Amino acid sequence: MSTDWMTAAETAAAVANRTTTALAATEAALARIAKADPTLNAFTDIVAERARARAREIDAAIARGERVGPLAGVPFAVKNLFDVAGLATRAGSKINRDRAPATHDAPLITRLEAAGAVLIGALNMGEYAYDFTGENIHDGPSRNPHDPTRMTGGSSGGSGAAVGGGEVPLALGSDTNGSIRVPSSLCGIFGLKPTYGRLPRTGSFPFVASFDHLGPLARSAADLALAYDAMQGPDDGDAACATRTPEPVSGLLAQGIDGLRIAKAGGYFETNLFPEAREAVERVVKALGVTRSVELPEAARARAAAYVISTTEGASLHLDRLRQRSNDFDPAVRDRLLAGAMVPAPLVDRAQKFRRWYQARVLDLFEQVDVIVAPATPCVAPKLGQVSFTLGGVELPVRANIGIHTQPISFIGLPVVAVPIPLEPLPIGVQIIAAPWREDIALRVAAALERAGVARAPRPKDF
Amino acid sequence: MSTDWMTAAETAAAVANRTTTALAATEAALARIAKADPTLNAFTDIVAERARARAREIDAAIARGERVGPLAGVPFAVKNLFDVAGLATRAGSKINRDRAPATHDAPLITRLEAAGAVLIGALNMGEYAYDFTGENIHDGPSRNPHDPTRMTGGSSGGSGAAVGGGEVPLALGSDTNGSIRVPSSLCGIFGLKPTYGRLPRTGSFPFVASFDHLGPLARSAADLALAYDAMQGPDDGDAACATRTPEPVSGLLAQGIDGLRIAKAGGYFETNLFPEAREAVERVVKALGVTRSVELPEAARARAAAYVISTTEGASLHLDRLRQRSNDFDPAVRDRLLAGAMVPAPLVDRAQKFRRWYQARVLDLFEQVDVIVAPATPCVAPKLGQVSFTLGGVELPVRANIGIHTQPISFIGLPVVAVPIPLEPLPIGVQIIAAPWREDIALRVAAALERAGVARAPRPKDF
Repeated sequence: MSTDWMTAAETAAAVANRTTTALAATEAALARIAKADPTLNAFTDIVAERARARAREIDAAIARGERVGPLAGVPFAVKNLFDVAGLATRAGSKINRDRAPATHDAPLITRLEAAGAVLIGALNMGEYAYDFTGENIHDGPSRNPHDPTRMTGGSSGGSGAAVGGGEVPLALGSDTNGSIRVPSSLCGIFGLKPTYGRLPRTGSFPFVASFDHLGPLARSAADLALAYDAMQGPDDGDAACATRTPEPVSGLLAQGIDGLRIAKAGGYFETNLFPEAREAVERVVKALGVTRSVELPEAARARAAAYVISTTEGASLHLDRLRQRSNDFDPAVRDRLLAGAMVPAPLVDRAQKFRRWYQARVLDLFEQVDVIVAPATPCVAPKLGQVSFTLGGVELPVRANIGIHTQPISFIGLPVVAVPIPLEPLPIGVQIIAAPWREDIALRVAAALERAGVARAPRPKDF
Repeated sequence: MSTDWMTAAETAAAVANRTTTALAATEAALARIAKADPTLNAFTDIVAERARARAREIDAAIARGERVGPLAGVPFAVKNLFDVAGLATRAGSKINRDRAPATHDAPLITRLEAAGAVLIGALNMGEYAYDFTGENIHDGPSRNPHDPTRMTGGSSGGSGAAVGGGEVPLALGSDTNGSIRVPSSLCGIFGLKPTYGRLPRTGSFPFVASFDHLGPLARSAADLALAYDAMQGPDDGDAACATRTPEPVSGLLAQGIDGLRIAKAGGYFETNLFPEAREAVERVVKALGVTRSVELPEAARARAAAYVISTTEGASLHLDRLRQRSNDFDPAVRDRLLAGAMVPAPLVDRAQKFRRWYQARVLDLFEQVDVIVAPATPCVAPKLGQVSFTLGGVELPVRANIGIHTQPISFIGLPVVAVPIPLEPLPIGVQIIAAPWREDIALRVAAALERAGVARAPRPKDF
């Protein structure tokens, strides 16, 4: 049977009950990539032989009657800021290609493979993850599966294209200011940005340590939960990673949402929206029967604070590279990092103080509600190369402003599921935001929206 | 009997056994201040009526046969960055005098008074605690009791002068980069900078929140322990203050130092010393039978990092005042804050990253040793107004460099007791440094040095 457009759960079930094999699922993924990737440009590296070897091991285990994990035979790929043994961890850059190849896989890859998944390759991304477009000057842009003349969103653009375009059912990305949620929104798929500190970032190239997150992108809420459960757990390599025992969520998705107090984000999150973003939020609000609204206080300032912290911590991380190899950066990234290198320190100190204030106020909101619904992006996918759009009557640069609604959420570490609303002609996402450590609640709401037919990863016509 | 030059413990004992009264001890302190302070300039505020009222309460309690605390009738004073009900918390500045008077005492004052101590007044300090000299352009300099033409050291200069000059047996100060240890060293008294987070800073004016400490200055190690025990305990007003149960140390000082592994700080801490500082450390090393040396790695860089963090966080704290009332600052403080306001943020980010590295390395050292001995200041008290001295053949500004040996210790929060070595003609201090939460060990070493006659607060000829 064809595993094309199957979810991860469906693929694993087909492999486990021998309707297909892990090797066949792997070969099918490689074939889809061979066909689609010249258009999508999602992959920067394919590890076909490794994948086939891993798939054969799984099939052998099944033949021996051994138990295999819940992701048995599921092809997946990772943003190229994850360490993959044998590959230089490029993080979207030219400069990093001079690094020695990684000697080990990142723990999240190891954990997914321990659950039976099969790593297929590494994915295109915005340089050093400082990007909302999915454009990359070195590797070319990843392209939107619903319209290849459009952006995937970034910085996990290859992850969005590979999953939204059906190349693989599962990918990993990273999200500092929106880099999982934005491509999920523009590519019409589900994405989970977990609570800060929940999944270890060991073996990944950083951007802003205090709000870098790793997480999965997939075509169903159940797949996010499966991958998330496989990846949970402490790791000594990431000092910010919590030591608490994993709390599996997959079994909770059928619970429904009765009793959950759900509110729409008001104020800031109702502004700077194109009509399609407003429509998507309204569909979710209607489906969930939401009648109340809450306001995240000073959200515009929160975005500004996240911006200042990002650009300065990013500049700190890259300072030596900026000094020594300035010309090897993507100019659009370099110039913002150079600006960040000159921001006076007291402004950052004040941004950090504000951040603590804001986080405390937002946590207070979760005394009154369990879930907050907000737009994921202000618009559907812009055209590749598009430099500006007009929001609220003001012409604004696209690159900085696609993340206008994600940025005030991640820098205080809240868990969010981006759910795809299959508008025509292009999908767009909505953020389902929960209190820290309550990924389970956000995923339950996402699954309920999926069951209601409101959220769905639409299959692109061409892939 | 005269309570002049009595320690706090001796005063409390005399009050408790009715050899004297709390009121007499208070009046004696007021009389000493009336006589000495025109020279020392230690006090900026005297709260005589409050003190007398409090002393009468204690005497009444004793007359009723009630138990009184271990500091019964002990006069004390606080650096004027502590809130004292009814006084504007000036923190050494002109600008803060426009603030409304404090409505409550800082908790440390309340706790000392609960132990029977009697607040006499508030003490002169370097503006906004950004100072190692004890000079203050608004209030005039505090003057060294051993030579009033010399500095007290800062920023707790009034605390050093008031205790070293015999006005009160006990004072509170604050220490960010050395502001308790430096005046302790130059004024010839004992000072305790506790572990970061051990004493709450509620009701005090801050400087650099991540390494501001409050602590006592006194003329014996036992007095430091008494005051410290009275002040220990959590407080909700200071998020950095540990919630752990107080661990009294006063009873431990007689234990001696058998079995303690004591080392001298090598490398950086053996350089940039005038002969008197070298002599003081050698006396301590000899008395303690120290034979080994440990090196705090990259201590010079640690000092630079502490400097960069201080100046930028200080600038952040004072940014509005710098913009609005620039001319009301002490120029020596203002100009450094203005410089701090323009330091690029990535440098601070790197300083913070280095700080975490350095802290981990220094904590590792405490696997091998219990105590590290280091100079407190490079020299005895400089002349008031002295702008430079020559260290290692290089002419350096006095103001920034008196704290050269204290700065690399406090920004990683280690507890330190500064012990006075009574050299002639001027005393100088030595730092006794312990692992976090081991104030008890540093105080035991200080007490042992006192018993051996090596450490002693010398009585000035003129006071």
